[in-house]
Parts: sequence; C-alpha cells; structure tokens
Amino acid sequence: MELLHDDNYFMKQALIEAQKAFEADEVPVGAVITIDNKIIARAHNLTQRLNDVTAHAEMQVITSAANYLNGKYLSGCTLYVTLEPCVMCIGAIYWARLSRIVFAAGDPKRGFQRAHINLHPKSTVSSGIMESEAVKLLNKFFDGKRK
Amino acid sequence: MELLHDDNYFMKQALIEAQKAFEADEVPVGAVITIDNKIIARAHNLTQRLNDVTAHAEMQVITSAANYLNGKYLSGCTLYVTLEPCVMCIGAIYWARLSRIVFAAGDPKRGFQRAHINLHPKSTVSSGIMESEAVKLLNKFFDGKRK
Repeated sequence: MELLHDDNYFMKQALIEAQKAFEADEVPVGAVITIDNKIIARAHNLTQRLNDVTAHAEMQVITSAANYLNGKYLSGCTLYVTLEPCVMCIGAIYWARLSRIVFAAGDPKRGFQRAHINLHPKSTVSSGIMESEAVKLLNKFFDGKRK
Repeated sequence: MELLHDDNYFMKQALIEAQKAFEADEVPVGAVITIDNKIIARAHNLTQRLNDVTAHAEMQVITSAANYLNGKYLSGCTLYVTLEPCVMCIGAIYWARLSRIVFAAGDPKRGFQRAHINLHPKSTVSSGIMESEAVKLLNKFFDGKRK
C-alpha cells in the first residue's frame, strides 16, 4: 500500500530546502513540486550564489520540474513554497499552469496577494501550512543580518 | 568622439534578437540591456528550446547583464524589449532595479500595464519605439502558426 503524504509532509520538505538556503546565507525560502503525491523537484533561493535576482526558489523549482517532466507545463502539479510568491514568481506560476499553490508564510510587503494579481482560473491557493516554522526561520535570518 | 546612440538604435538591436527567436521558431521577442550608452547583454525568448516557461527574453537578458556587471542590481541600466513585459518579467525588472524600461509593442492581454502593477518608483517606462516593426514580426509568427 502506497503511503499518501499530506500538505504538512510536503511543506516540511520545502522547509528543509529553506534551511539549506539559510545555511548558505541566502534568504531562507524553499520549494518543492509534486505530482500524484510524489516530489519531482526541490529547490531553494539562490540569488546570492548565482548573483541573480531571478533565482528565487519558485523559479528554480519550476525549471527543475519542467526538466523532469520534459515538458514546460506543470498542469496537475502542486507547488509548496515556504513564503508567499512575489509578483515575478506568481507570473511564472501562471505561465507554468501549476494547478495548486500552497505557501506557508504570507509576505505582506512583496507578496502577490497585496499586488492584487489574479492566478490562472484553474489554479487554487492554500496558505498558512507550517506558517510558524517558516516565519521563525525567516526572522532568524533577518535578525542575524541586523546584528 | 564617441557616437551616442539613441532609443531607435538600441531597439533595433533588440529587434535583431527577436528575429533570431523567430528563426528558431520561438515567439519573437528580443531584448538588450545598456549602461552608459553601451550594450552589455543581448537575449531572446528561449521558452521552446529550454522547455522552460521562465526563459523569456527579459529574464535571460537580466541574468546575462548581472553576470557581466558581476552584481545582481542593474541600477543605471536601460532594458530595451520588443514586447511589453509580462507580470513575471516586470517582477524581475523590479528586483533588478533597472532604471529605465523601453518597449516596442504593447501586449493588451498579458502585459504588466493591464495587470496594474506598479514599477519601482525610481524606474521609468517608455513605449512605442519601433512598435510597427515589432508588431509585424509577432504577427508574421502567429499567422504562420495558424496556417
């Protein structure tokens, strides 16, 4: 019998990615993409290492999932990400036709919801899954930077 | 005496990139980034070849310019692009802190202006430079696809 994982399980995997970003002195955001209850791509923010503002976790994981599926559209896939996607990333999510987006912490300053951007009508969004863990890691990072 | 180029010159260079995309059977959008009246990066849409929805001309050229400058912020730079940037690309333009954006053809369906997204307050936008040439190439591409 195959074990069916839930949103908490997959968000925990995204948090493991965020922790890797933290350890590399990157803003700690991580993401995974699943299809049929399996992870097909994992990534974390790489803007510092790649010296590239476009290297957000979501962008990396979308590119990686498309490589895995050998097709650029991610219909039927779910994105788990530890922080609310920004305008750039929600645009990429739209183009990739991801079916479902689950994010942990909200981003009132830079998140897509504040910018009133509509998702693809076939996409759904859930939020708040493991929010406190994601916020804790982000605060730890930014508190460390302020010192 | 150094020759100072104008917006028409740089948009023509972006159109040369768009033509390369056309010849590779990609949606023909091209872009260049300049600083101090010099081109530091050129790119065109590669979504088909890279099998990646994030590989728009603007994303490619921002990454390339950041590599050239060895810094991820493009303050003082101008982006010339043959089509109005989409939501994803305007998000990247925001993060990259580009000072000026010049686009040729408008994109009433997918452009950032329809989505009412604000640019960085320090950025400026101009449009319509060599618009008819850009539209002609886009129409030639999409008319060919409909046949």
